[in-house]
Amino acid sequence: MGRRQRDIPALFDAARSGHRASLAKLLSAIERGGDSAREVGALAFPVAGTGYTVGITGAPGAGKSTLTSALVAEMRSDESVLSASNIAVLAIDPSSPFTGGAILGDRVRMQDHALDESVFIRSMATRGHLGGLALAAPEAVRVLEAAGRDWVLIETVGVGQVEVEVVGAADTTVVVVNPGWGDAVQANKAGLMEIADVFVINKADRAGTADTHRDLEHMLDLSGHPAEGEPYWRPPIVETVANTNTGLEGLAEAIGAHRAHITESGILAKRRDQRVDDELRRIIVATLEHRAGVLSEGKTFDAVRAEVAGRRLDPWQAARQLIEG
Amino acid sequence: MGRRQRDIPALFDAARSGHRASLAKLLSAIERGGDSAREVGALAFPVAGTGYTVGITGAPGAGKSTLTSALVAEMRSDESVLSASNIAVLAIDPSSPFTGGAILGDRVRMQDHALDESVFIRSMATRGHLGGLALAAPEAVRVLEAAGRDWVLIETVGVGQVEVEVVGAADTTVVVVNPGWGDAVQANKAGLMEIADVFVINKADRAGTADTHRDLEHMLDLSGHPAEGEPYWRPPIVETVANTNTGLEGLAEAIGAHRAHITESGILAKRRDQRVDDELRRIIVATLEHRAGVLSEGKTFDAVRAEVAGRRLDPWQAARQLIEG
Repeated sequence: MGRRQRDIPALFDAARSGHRASLAKLLSAIERGGDSAREVGALAFPVAGTGYTVGITGAPGAGKSTLTSALVAEMRSDESVLSASNIAVLAIDPSSPFTGGAILGDRVRMQDHALDESVFIRSMATRGHLGGLALAAPEAVRVLEAAGRDWVLIETVGVGQVEVEVVGAADTTVVVVNPGWGDAVQANKAGLMEIADVFVINKADRAGTADTHRDLEHMLDLSGHPAEGEPYWRPPIVETVANTNTGLEGLAEAIGAHRAHITESGILAKRRDQRVDDELRRIIVATLEHRAGVLSEGKTFDAVRAEVAGRRLDPWQAARQLIEG
Repeated sequence: MGRRQRDIPALFDAARSGHRASLAKLLSAIERGGDSAREVGALAFPVAGTGYTVGITGAPGAGKSTLTSALVAEMRSDESVLSASNIAVLAIDPSSPFTGGAILGDRVRMQDHALDESVFIRSMATRGHLGGLALAAPEAVRVLEAAGRDWVLIETVGVGQVEVEVVGAADTTVVVVNPGWGDAVQANKAGLMEIADVFVINKADRAGTADTHRDLEHMLDLSGHPAEGEPYWRPPIVETVANTNTGLEGLAEAIGAHRAHITESGILAKRRDQRVDDELRRIIVATLEHRAGVLSEGKTFDAVRAEVAGRRLDPWQAARQLIEG
């Protein structure tokens, strides 16, 4: 670990100059957490905040990975409204035991971009990072931004609570559903209606697309109230068939329109401030929870517990003694 | 508040001598939390642990209050196997805005015992106590024990998470169901199977009693594995009709048998040690969570937040600065 830490400023400079392997190592340090992650974070933070993040979520099997890959291809085109030459894809996978760093071997579609220097692809699982992915993901995004990535697409594997939180904290959040009875309702139940800025009905060549479209419109009719004082944004519904690259211009346009809306209205700046506040509060809670765990084990705890068992200290006095040391 | 605190040792002595109004005031101090609660707790703890606690829970409408009242009547009889002359009833009601201290006016049955000096009845709601009822209830029990109550019956109004926790921490836990399809299944879903030491089918004069009895036996067949190294206790199923005082001897016998079982096997002592450990850990977590809340507001937080907004501190450095002061 000591050696790694000494290397971090050098790795950081190399990543800033475009060295992909160094960037991968910095992200591994973030995943592992601890002092190395803090050092990487401290270097990245002052020069981050320069990119734009797009979250992509939806139920497993909705085709998010294929859609993300097709969106990357669209963005790599000079004709796209989102034309970009520095894209990162961060795949959030809380359940994966896979130790990150490599390109995702099981994501066949993503391999289309594996040799494209303009695209950096990375999966991220929970490892040692205090506070888990909810706190590791924003740090990873800042490292990617510091390394010059203008666009960071954050894709989740599932719709677990942490994944919804991470994706909901993106600048623009895309929720992917499929045609078929109940898919829109499921998205609603998973808390995706609240975080969606753009809806995608992927696999829109299948039966039931019109019904799902109508269900989503209906739910938007019911829930479409802007936050107090904010101009109203009604999430557009885009139809795609990602595996034939169909409908991606429409998705790029919807993302671009949402970006313009929140930028011009000042919502983007406001939300980013709010996110930093939220992150700071989460870090405080995670740090103190970790401390509570440490206080609840070991020799000092055992000694104090014995005092309580002997009724010489009551549990509140004991807790105070442990906390105040 | 200052005046109240000075009075606490005097109130405590009076409560120990049997003065009911003083006992009620001490319990109010516990409910309110803060320094007064700590003072009461410190006085009670060294002389507590002398009583036996029975938790009574089940879905709203199962007749828990009537059953508790009938059980008290049974225990007040010289012929009962649980014959007792110093009983307390603590009714846990997380949702009640009622400020405690008085006898529960709305609990008609309980009024049967209102003039009986041997029975002390008290409801308890969440007020200011840090950690809520989960941490206030064990403190209240200790005050009741310090005031000489040999038996503390802890009754819950509903089966919310906190109520199940509080009742599950009693020495003997009684789970009340009614005849009728699905009631046993609902009890299972609410997490009551794990905490039950005794089952009561109350309103057993109604149709469906035999079916419910069989459902419970079946669930016990499926789940009846003792903790490692502990002798097996299969929760008996008692049928009662509380509002006609029917079946209460059977309930008293079941409680007595469970008490003998855990006392003789050493389980009682082991579980009480475990409960104090759990309480200590909870207090640590609650104290640190409270501190996290305090750290996340106010002028210092605003100043540090401004440093983060100006990208002069990263969120982790900011959190450390706030925590370490």
